[in-house]
Amino acid sequence: MARKIILDCDPGHDDAIAMLLAHGNPDVELVAVTTVVGNQTLEKVTRNALSVARIADITGVPFAAGCPRPLVREVEVAESIHGESGLDGPVLPEPTLELDRRHAVDLIIDTVMSHEPGEITIVPTAGLTNIALAVRKEPRIAERVREVVLMGGGYHTGNWSAVAEFNIKIDPEAAHIVFNERWPLTMVGLDLTHQALATPEVVARIAAVGTGPAAFVGELLDFFGTMYLREQGFEHPPVHDPCAVAYVIDPSVMTVRKAPVDIELTGTLTLGMTVADFRSPAPADCHTQVAVDLDHGRFWDLVVDALERIGEVSA
Amino acid sequence: MARKIILDCDPGHDDAIAMLLAHGNPDVELVAVTTVVGNQTLEKVTRNALSVARIADITGVPFAAGCPRPLVREVEVAESIHGESGLDGPVLPEPTLELDRRHAVDLIIDTVMSHEPGEITIVPTAGLTNIALAVRKEPRIAERVREVVLMGGGYHTGNWSAVAEFNIKIDPEAAHIVFNERWPLTMVGLDLTHQALATPEVVARIAAVGTGPAAFVGELLDFFGTMYLREQGFEHPPVHDPCAVAYVIDPSVMTVRKAPVDIELTGTLTLGMTVADFRSPAPADCHTQVAVDLDHGRFWDLVVDALERIGEVSA
Amino acid sequence: MARKIILDCDPGHDDAIAMLLAHGNPDVELVAVTTVVGNQTLEKVTRNALSVARIADITGVPFAAGCPRPLVREVEVAESIHGESGLDGPVLPEPTLELDRRHAVDLIIDTVMSHEPGEITIVPTAGLTNIALAVRKEPRIAERVREVVLMGGGYHTGNWSAVAEFNIKIDPEAAHIVFNERWPLTMVGLDLTHQALATPEVVARIAAVGTGPAAFVGELLDFFGTMYLREQGFEHPPVHDPCAVAYVIDPSVMTVRKAPVDIELTGTLTLGMTVADFRSPAPADCHTQVAVDLDHGRFWDLVVDALERIGEVSA
Amino acid sequence: MARKIILDCDPGHDDAIAMLLAHGNPDVELVAVTTVVGNQTLEKVTRNALSVARIADITGVPFAAGCPRPLVREVEVAESIHGESGLDGPVLPEPTLELDRRHAVDLIIDTVMSHEPGEITIVPTAGLTNIALAVRKEPRIAERVREVVLMGGGYHTGNWSAVAEFNIKIDPEAAHIVFNERWPLTMVGLDLTHQALATPEVVARIAAVGTGPAAFVGELLDFFGTMYLREQGFEHPPVHDPCAVAYVIDPSVMTVRKAPVDIELTGTLTLGMTVADFRSPAPADCHTQVAVDLDHGRFWDLVVDALERIGEVSA
Repeated sequence: MARKIILDCDPGHDDAIAMLLAHGNPDVELVAVTTVVGNQTLEKVTRNALSVARIADITGVPFAAGCPRPLVREVEVAESIHGESGLDGPVLPEPTLELDRRHAVDLIIDTVMSHEPGEITIVPTAGLTNIALAVRKEPRIAERVREVVLMGGGYHTGNWSAVAEFNIKIDPEAAHIVFNERWPLTMVGLDLTHQALATPEVVARIAAVGTGPAAFVGELLDFFGTMYLREQGFEHPPVHDPCAVAYVIDPSVMTVRKAPVDIELTGTLTLGMTVADFRSPAPADCHTQVAVDLDHGRFWDLVVDALERIGEVSA
Repeated sequence: MARKIILDCDPGHDDAIAMLLAHGNPDVELVAVTTVVGNQTLEKVTRNALSVARIADITGVPFAAGCPRPLVREVEVAESIHGESGLDGPVLPEPTLELDRRHAVDLIIDTVMSHEPGEITIVPTAGLTNIALAVRKEPRIAERVREVVLMGGGYHTGNWSAVAEFNIKIDPEAAHIVFNERWPLTMVGLDLTHQALATPEVVARIAAVGTGPAAFVGELLDFFGTMYLREQGFEHPPVHDPCAVAYVIDPSVMTVRKAPVDIELTGTLTLGMTVADFRSPAPADCHTQVAVDLDHGRFWDLVVDALERIGEVSA
Repeated sequence: MARKIILDCDPGHDDAIAMLLAHGNPDVELVAVTTVVGNQTLEKVTRNALSVARIADITGVPFAAGCPRPLVREVEVAESIHGESGLDGPVLPEPTLELDRRHAVDLIIDTVMSHEPGEITIVPTAGLTNIALAVRKEPRIAERVREVVLMGGGYHTGNWSAVAEFNIKIDPEAAHIVFNERWPLTMVGLDLTHQALATPEVVARIAAVGTGPAAFVGELLDFFGTMYLREQGFEHPPVHDPCAVAYVIDPSVMTVRKAPVDIELTGTLTLGMTVADFRSPAPADCHTQVAVDLDHGRFWDLVVDALERIGEVSA
Repeated sequence: MARKIILDCDPGHDDAIAMLLAHGNPDVELVAVTTVVGNQTLEKVTRNALSVARIADITGVPFAAGCPRPLVREVEVAESIHGESGLDGPVLPEPTLELDRRHAVDLIIDTVMSHEPGEITIVPTAGLTNIALAVRKEPRIAERVREVVLMGGGYHTGNWSAVAEFNIKIDPEAAHIVFNERWPLTMVGLDLTHQALATPEVVARIAAVGTGPAAFVGELLDFFGTMYLREQGFEHPPVHDPCAVAYVIDPSVMTVRKAPVDIELTGTLTLGMTVADFRSPAPADCHTQVAVDLDHGRFWDLVVDALERIGEVSA
């Protein structure tokens, strides 16, 4: 049976690919898509999400907009990586889907509470503002979800500071809330996603799919690669967000390690660091784990397979 | 025309008196009462709020329960001051009012958005978790409310640490959110409320009202006075929360001073301090002010008057 | 018998006046003068100290230069108040005194250790870098000094931030060290020194002394007054540093209050705050006290008297 | 020509071995040994240093005691690893060497200033209190030393917290001072020293040397191994401090990587972390580097060789 997921995202090039992977893969089922400020403003990433839905012909799934700013900190977007629109590169079609009238926080709560315990997995690929607000407004979701599998953080790797990653650093208080709830939480961080490189071979495989959605992904990777080379010196861009979806589809696509993880809130150099403690074996009640090693080939197999299943879409 | 207020509280002895003041005084109108963890657990303070409603025969006002815990910090209650029930002293009647089905956060948002701009004043007398969540979920309330008049903080006075006050210290991140929104905000802090002492003369005046609700206030003050003497060395207890309501009724009951105020989030000794900057005249766009001097006589006149107007209640 | 003091200073207009007060008053004896970066660079304040010695004909007292930078923080000087030289206003004479060859830290240690226990009082009127280093290098001075009487901090008043004072804020780690040693410590902070205003009457009294050193003080106050008006809006300038010396001469010139005081090192808004805890009576072993109220008339009597005793100096 | 080093240490099992390595190896010359609180109290580690000097017949080298406590923090010793004496395991001989009368801080300063620029290398294998005080008291040593090669920290490894190492965490302010001076600094941290394991083969090689000093090292490793197994789950104990000496003897015994490193002073979870920034190539003026990979065989060759050169000592 397909795993039901809520994708909480800020598209964002890699968010878009994560959405396509979730839509195309038969082992996960998108039951809601929620958006939150992050790679760009809420307005832009919400529009992007709807455009991607049209590109992939995603229907029957509620999309809802969430928080336009982090809990405590000021808004900080990743325009240097994702461009002025948040999804620069391709020409985006006008959205056709209408937004759900609920706030993302309520859509998340309603979705979790209206499904059976253990049925819903939350997959955040953005700052954790929506998820934090949801679990503070309705604490019972913490016990009811199956697990949280998020893209963010890094136990030995930073990108938005020496030791902090963008999704966590833009709203560290929200991350603190989410990491300290007792739900099973898998952190798919930069340690892992910096292995998910879109090499020329990968790009060629995607191009070979030959469909509109695949061409869209090609354009995304083209822009993304240019920015990652210029801004962070990557030869091939790391495609972060689909890794979290891939883990839900098939946990064996990566190795993970159980360890306590907490969020630094007062550090001058370390604000928003996901501090993992590897000094001892994780305690029996440890509810967090971190992704370590990616099976690069199988990960991209999943992405290509999803694009093939989506096929041509008459937008 | 009476000023419409949402009372966000955690009864709490002084919260109870604040509620009676708001109910009995003709110049304010209670349009909603919301509860939040603080002086005791959410469950206890919510039940207390409903019991007070019965004591004063408050009807037709929605009561809603809010957050059972602060945003980031662990729950910390003031049992040493308010006792095991949060309202120790009097025997509390079983509530008869039913809670609104909405979450306090949604009741606050709905109330503000369904009234005209500038119509609703929010009066928090507890930790600011509900208010912070409300303004993050629906940012438009920040421009729509008339003002926020809160009991909490202290520019030169602390009670939960050398320089921090209970309501702010238990959820400093929420306080940071609320103080940094651009709504007009009046901080009625310990500097002011430590002047609102329930002296024997005050107690005698209240007793002389001779009604059930007045007797209830007498029992509250009796317990409150015992605890404040034992815990903080006060000869007569400071009755904090009604001061905020009194300011809404009649701002001339106290002097205020405009000054920028912000919340310390990383201090080791100063966590949750309401840092007011008095070095220069407040800038023209300063949206915060702090209460300085109380007219003790007129303040208690308002409380006694409200009790007299409430009169006897056949509970 | 005159109280022997080490004056650790960063002249600085008010430091210069403090030095003259200590030199002219018969109840204190300057046994060493040490300098430290603060109002200006170490080089400048050291030269200023020697110039002031010449102006007042201070001889037979060792002067030593200390630390050119704070322990952890970067150098920050108060040029906006003390000008480019650190003692702008008067024309300064070339120094004639030679510096002691020892480092200020060693002069402090040697002076304390070569006197009887309880004989030496340390009077810092600058950042506390020298004193902190001295007590870390030779911990025994903490028990051997009579007391530390310092100008710095403020329990309810800041000038270099909303809640922090310059001397403490420029080297908060040093202040933390000094305030946490167990010696008796009197904090003569802004709460007190903002009462030590050089009013026109004061200025006139000093002018009437009619000597070279008095004229020098007049020129200092003239410049100081201009800067304090421009920078901090004071009608008459607060003359901080001599207040600490005055307390050593005659403690009854001000009221003090015992209270635990500690230094905030991690606060974002409160870095370098001298956090005093007034919630309860000070514990029996409390070793810190803060200055509260100044007898303005008697304070300036002491200053004028000292200038009269110094008399004319044939520089 | 042998490299002249000042060894600043807190023996400590691995400090003792570092001292023996420095003494026995012909390519380094011990010109001073200074002690500081750390693994045990100053009194204990100083006595231990003198006992080790007797064991290895180290003469003609000044030994001086330094700081008995960290700059700002309270004393914290590593009794769980080094035992009650700081050097538990072997029976220690009574010291015969007399301490230099100078404070360690002054011995460090005098040694650096009395040698040619670039002649002295400082090798701290303890908390950095002495070194920090020395460079604050005499800033010119920062330009005059050849380099600082220290054991401490870890870019991806902690032992005294999830991300901080003992030597740095016990005096993070001192570490901040030392890492921010502009001298060339090599951090030989846990990432490296956790490779310097005393395996059974190593222990056997040392035993085979067959001398008193070698037997002493054997007894040290026996105790050290027991504690590291019990406290941190190491099968074979990591022998940290000699790695720093080994790097001075022969930098090719390990690989290093240039990177900016700074010390976290305000983090709740990360206090004392040595934050290295690997996101980009180190800037041209980067003065810090971190040790990455150890040549285990050659490292232990150096230790065994030093013991063989020391030979039998008639204590």
